[in-house]
Amino acid sequence: MLDRVQLTEDFSISRLAQGFWRLADWDLSPQERLEFIESLLDLGITTFDHADIYGDYTCENLFGEALELKAELREEMELVSKCGIKLISENRPEHEIKYYDTSKEHIINSVNNSLNNLRTEYLDLLLIHRPDPLMDPDEVAETFKQLKEEGKVRNFGVSNFLPSQFEMLSSKLDFPLVTNQVEISVMNFENFDNGTIEKCQEKDVSPMAWSPLTGGKIFKAKSEKAQRIKNVLEEIKKDLNADSIAQIMYAWLLNHPAQIIPIVGSGKLYRVKEAVAAAEIELTRQQWFKIWQSGLGHPVA
Amino acid sequence: MLDRVQLTEDFSISRLAQGFWRLADWDLSPQERLEFIESLLDLGITTFDHADIYGDYTCENLFGEALELKAELREEMELVSKCGIKLISENRPEHEIKYYDTSKEHIINSVNNSLNNLRTEYLDLLLIHRPDPLMDPDEVAETFKQLKEEGKVRNFGVSNFLPSQFEMLSSKLDFPLVTNQVEISVMNFENFDNGTIEKCQEKDVSPMAWSPLTGGKIFKAKSEKAQRIKNVLEEIKKDLNADSIAQIMYAWLLNHPAQIIPIVGSGKLYRVKEAVAAAEIELTRQQWFKIWQSGLGHPVA
Amino acid sequence: MLDRVQLTEDFSISRLAQGFWRLADWDLSPQERLEFIESLLDLGITTFDHADIYGDYTCENLFGEALELKAELREEMELVSKCGIKLISENRPEHEIKYYDTSKEHIINSVNNSLNNLRTEYLDLLLIHRPDPLMDPDEVAETFKQLKEEGKVRNFGVSNFLPSQFEMLSSKLDFPLVTNQVEISVMNFENFDNGTIEKCQEKDVSPMAWSPLTGGKIFKAKSEKAQRIKNVLEEIKKDLNADSIAQIMYAWLLNHPAQIIPIVGSGKLYRVKEAVAAAEIELTRQQWFKIWQSGLGHPVA
Repeated sequence: MLDRVQLTEDFSISRLAQGFWRLADWDLSPQERLEFIESLLDLGITTFDHADIYGDYTCENLFGEALELKAELREEMELVSKCGIKLISENRPEHEIKYYDTSKEHIINSVNNSLNNLRTEYLDLLLIHRPDPLMDPDEVAETFKQLKEEGKVRNFGVSNFLPSQFEMLSSKLDFPLVTNQVEISVMNFENFDNGTIEKCQEKDVSPMAWSPLTGGKIFKAKSEKAQRIKNVLEEIKKDLNADSIAQIMYAWLLNHPAQIIPIVGSGKLYRVKEAVAAAEIELTRQQWFKIWQSGLGHPVA
Repeated sequence: MLDRVQLTEDFSISRLAQGFWRLADWDLSPQERLEFIESLLDLGITTFDHADIYGDYTCENLFGEALELKAELREEMELVSKCGIKLISENRPEHEIKYYDTSKEHIINSVNNSLNNLRTEYLDLLLIHRPDPLMDPDEVAETFKQLKEEGKVRNFGVSNFLPSQFEMLSSKLDFPLVTNQVEISVMNFENFDNGTIEKCQEKDVSPMAWSPLTGGKIFKAKSEKAQRIKNVLEEIKKDLNADSIAQIMYAWLLNHPAQIIPIVGSGKLYRVKEAVAAAEIELTRQQWFKIWQSGLGHPVA
Repeated sequence: MLDRVQLTEDFSISRLAQGFWRLADWDLSPQERLEFIESLLDLGITTFDHADIYGDYTCENLFGEALELKAELREEMELVSKCGIKLISENRPEHEIKYYDTSKEHIINSVNNSLNNLRTEYLDLLLIHRPDPLMDPDEVAETFKQLKEEGKVRNFGVSNFLPSQFEMLSSKLDFPLVTNQVEISVMNFENFDNGTIEKCQEKDVSPMAWSPLTGGKIFKAKSEKAQRIKNVLEEIKKDLNADSIAQIMYAWLLNHPAQIIPIVGSGKLYRVKEAVAAAEIELTRQQWFKIWQSGLGHPVA
């Protein structure tokens, strides 16, 4: 069974989260979606990552259709959603461009939509999806407070926030932001370089990692960099008798002391099981740094 | 009448400031300068932005000549000045290169000069003009304290400071820095990108914006970027029935929640009136982001 | 006699430190090494900078061989060492790549090795040599605490840490980090640009400067930049009647208000004496900025 990670004293999530970004592409019936959700819960993956905009504003409802079939499962899971991005979409004809909206009005509307679509009375965690150059952090703080008091959202976090943005919003809140969901993978060290992971460690905040498998870039290995990293992953996979290089990529994140929560994006159960098994893999520091070095393209300084 | 912005509990400035950077170029008699000042006050622009070095060290005196003609106006305005840059100048033959000086001796000399030239007994606000790699923040703090106690300067701020520099100096002071005067415009997002505006929002500090009209780059529209932004400004101007794209550029700043104070640089009263009228313009988020996107050159992430 | 710099209330180091990075290359007998150490102490240079890895893991022992000849000198000096880097080396055949290790196990082993090699019962100062992307700051903090309680290390600092890394580790400690040893020279303004020196000033931490003479780049003057800076150094050397441009480079660091401690790297006593004499040189701000401008390659903004 998967470990859990405490984000606050009374809120924990599973060591791996399942993302439902591409749920609309999986082409499953409501009953099949429910079976997938139940399998996840059986594996110990109880944290389900959504956003208002996923699947062009459709994925939350697809999940909700399944949950409705067995509503008592709600208490066995943590539902995470996001808001703040407005997409150009047939479902939102009033949007002439893609833009951000972190106004009180939009956050509250978006949360209400998410609750309706997900067939739930509360979110366990709401994230601001992107840092908004027009954000009024006082207004966001007031909105979070109201949503908490109304019982609609229990915990709050951010996504893709730089340390300065995390500090700005945190400084206006009476409670801590519990996560920062950012891209981290063997192909993407950006959040190591810009201080984001360090800020998380300073604040004892566990980051969630999107695209933990590099969005497929490693498997295709079209660039010299991807090929170089892949070679190292293959070597370590062999040394550890692992099932796949995907496992090594998960293990690379799971072995980091920041308690990074990888978000599994696949809808195939055998892929998810592979990820769960990766939670058992221990990398030596030297192995971790072989991957780091292959990502850098040169030895450490 | 223009709104005011509280920088501290007992110090407010007008929603727009007037800059006197180019006062020497306006070629006005002392009486004409006085009339311009009186017109500004009538419009509600009471905050006048100076620096020791403007006009090759001459502008403060040109302003002072006018103020002397009607000294009782002093109490109706806020005088802002700056120090810390040393120019190569016939008026400062001892300077062999352009450099910075934030020593106690130089700050105090420069303030005394500003007071003499402006014909005033105090500055409402003194800014360190540029971050100085040779700054001793303890010495600057001690100097600020002394100037405050002597009644020569009532409030202090900085200009063109990065967050790290703002924090360094703030940490040595017993009172808050009340502003950071930086370049912000539809052509210049630097202070969005480097955390400066976020640091202001975190600290509840209203930034002042220099070159709010891009230093004329938009009007000339010589670059592809400038032309692209200008097209969007023209479109929004039309949608809002505004008088000019300058108004849209001011409104873009004034609609930001950080309470950005644009510094009007023109010496022509009809231009200033245009700016004042811009304070009434409300942009939708979508309009604000159309300008943001045109400045980025691509949709938001 | 050289000044001292207080790093904490009860811990001071000399205004210049001596580095033993290249001790293995100096080709000295133990007795000659001892004589060099005694000469340094006579000059007031009492702070000796080591690292586990210097000379491919050999320099600490070479120093210890000399100290053993006159063990009573231990109380007249401050011994600084570092850990956290693992080199590919015949002396560490288990290292397949160069990597970092800031685990409790490695830090403690490395300190024990340093104590044995240096023939001492305590280090005055231990530095983490490089920021480690796999660092667990809580584990490092726990390790520092234990080493302090055991009396093996009296003070702690870091090397080559960015502000975010400095803050991360500091936040976990009950005592302050006393220095950040970074590269600073007339050829290298990186730590001015990235906020590191400002963070030191904010925290009243004196940085130590490695490669204060640019690692020889100025003397060779192979690049246009190096030649440009060298010309300015020569000019100022002449104006001040100094002995060498090396002295001007030291003075440029010593005149900075952050109380930068240059680390002298030469094993030749006349070079060290030159450095000590540089501590008497006062640069004007204008001279300091002539060097700064030559390093920038353009006037200040």
